[in-house]
This record gives sequence, structure tokens and C-alpha cells, in this order.
Amino acid sequence: MHVQIDLTTQPIDLLSAVPPEFAGGAGARVEFQGTVRGEEAGLPIAALEYEVYLPMAERVMRRIVEDLGHRHPCRWVRVTHRVGVVPVGEAAIQVAVTAAHRAAAFALVTRFMDRLKQDVPIWKRRALAPAELEALRP
Amino acid sequence: MHVQIDLTTQPIDLLSAVPPEFAGGAGARVEFQGTVRGEEAGLPIAALEYEVYLPMAERVMRRIVEDLGHRHPCRWVRVTHRVGVVPVGEAAIQVAVTAAHRAAAFALVTRFMDRLKQDVPIWKRRALAPAELEALRP
Repeated sequence: MHVQIDLTTQPIDLLSAVPPEFAGGAGARVEFQGTVRGEEAGLPIAALEYEVYLPMAERVMRRIVEDLGHRHPCRWVRVTHRVGVVPVGEAAIQVAVTAAHRAAAFALVTRFMDRLKQDVPIWKRRALAPAELEALRP
Repeated sequence: MHVQIDLTTQPIDLLSAVPPEFAGGAGARVEFQGTVRGEEAGLPIAALEYEVYLPMAERVMRRIVEDLGHRHPCRWVRVTHRVGVVPVGEAAIQVAVTAAHRAAAFALVTRFMDRLKQDVPIWKRRALAPAELEALRP
């Protein structure tokens, strides 16, 4: 299983492709993207800020993926987490998986997301309320 | 919930985007692609052929999606099924969903795939063995 974990302050390229060497034998490809919604805990927001404890976050994410891969065999897993300020409508995380069978691919992605929230040292906070963003406009 | 069902003899555009009007409020986007593998029922193949009973297949797929949408609310669902000969490595089906919450998006996609196999009049058969394909080459 090839595992790639990236933490980036740049927008996530949502249309990036599976490398050809991992696309071939795969019968299933699952991709999840979590985007920032216009409210957080009931309050309107314009962005979320993700703070991360590096390099522990990367190490823990890799360990979770490898652990899940024993029960849910996949060929290729790529996790990209954006850090810093992420505006509403943009992706904070993308998880892309290929596997021979769809059940393993879905299981790995959904369980990864559950464990990410519990175990990985990434915190988010409301970065800007819409009125604050408005006040910054010329 | 906006539902789009397409049956096509053309290759599925794997990088097609969510229309902007359905991307905005969505916190989750899930996309599944099922591709043709190099073997079927233990035998090596070069392609699968999908035969479909139109328009019943389209109507049944739409009904399944709408039914699942009551329990698993999503904003936008697009199912694209390729029919005719689909070579190994190419996608036979793509299901793309956006929803406010990831649990609903994953549930709709996985349950749709389960019911597709049971209820929709689409049949697949081994179209070509690799040796047959080889024999066609000049």
C-alpha cells in the first residue's frame, strides 16, 4: 500500500489524478473532500483556521492509514490536509484511495475520517465572521 | 436534492466538477468510480460489455437515489453509467455526491452501489479475453 500524507498551506487541487501505476489494477476509487461550510457551531463564519502540531500530525495520520490498511486492503492512499486559514467553500481535507474492491476503499476513508477527529493534533477555530471580512473590504 | 442520471457509451470524464450552485453549502463531497479490472470471475479479460434495458435502468436508478435521499439527505447526486464495451482500466460507473455532512454522503453512495447490483437491469459480460484482443492486432 502506497501512502502519501501532505500538509499544505496552499489550496488543495481537487482534480488531481491517481498516479497511473496505482490506477491499473484498482477496481474502485473513492475520493472524499471536506470543505469549509458557512457556519461553525451555529455561528456564521467566513473562514476556519487550522492549527497543526507538526510533524506529529503527519506521523499519526500515516500510522492510522497503515493500521486501517491491514483490515481494509488498499493499493494507494493519499491524504492532503490544508492548514492555516481556509475560506468558506474551499477544501480543508481530501482523502483519495484506490483498492481492488469498493468495500475496503469506503471503509478506509470513513474510518480514517473518524480517527482523524479523535487522534490527530489538528485544531480548528473560527477565523473570521462575515462582518469582520466585510469590514476589511475597501 | 438535485439528481442527474446518465447512461453513456462514451468514456466517463473522471475529472468533471460539481456545478458551483451545488458546491457552495456542501461540507462533504464523495466520489466513487468503479473501473474494469483485468479479471472477471477468475478469468483474465480485456474488457467487459454492459448491456442495459433502457429507459427502465435510468428510472430505477433515479428512484433508488430519491429513496435513499430521504434517510441520507444530500444536495446533489450525479450517477454516470457507461454501457457497451468498457476496456480494462476504464470507469464503468461514477457516483458523485455533495451533502452538508459526510455521513449522509457516504451512506448514499455505498447503499446506491449495493442496490444498483440488485435492482437495476444492467448486465455485464466478459467482452474479450486478452488472447482474443491480441489476435485482433495486426
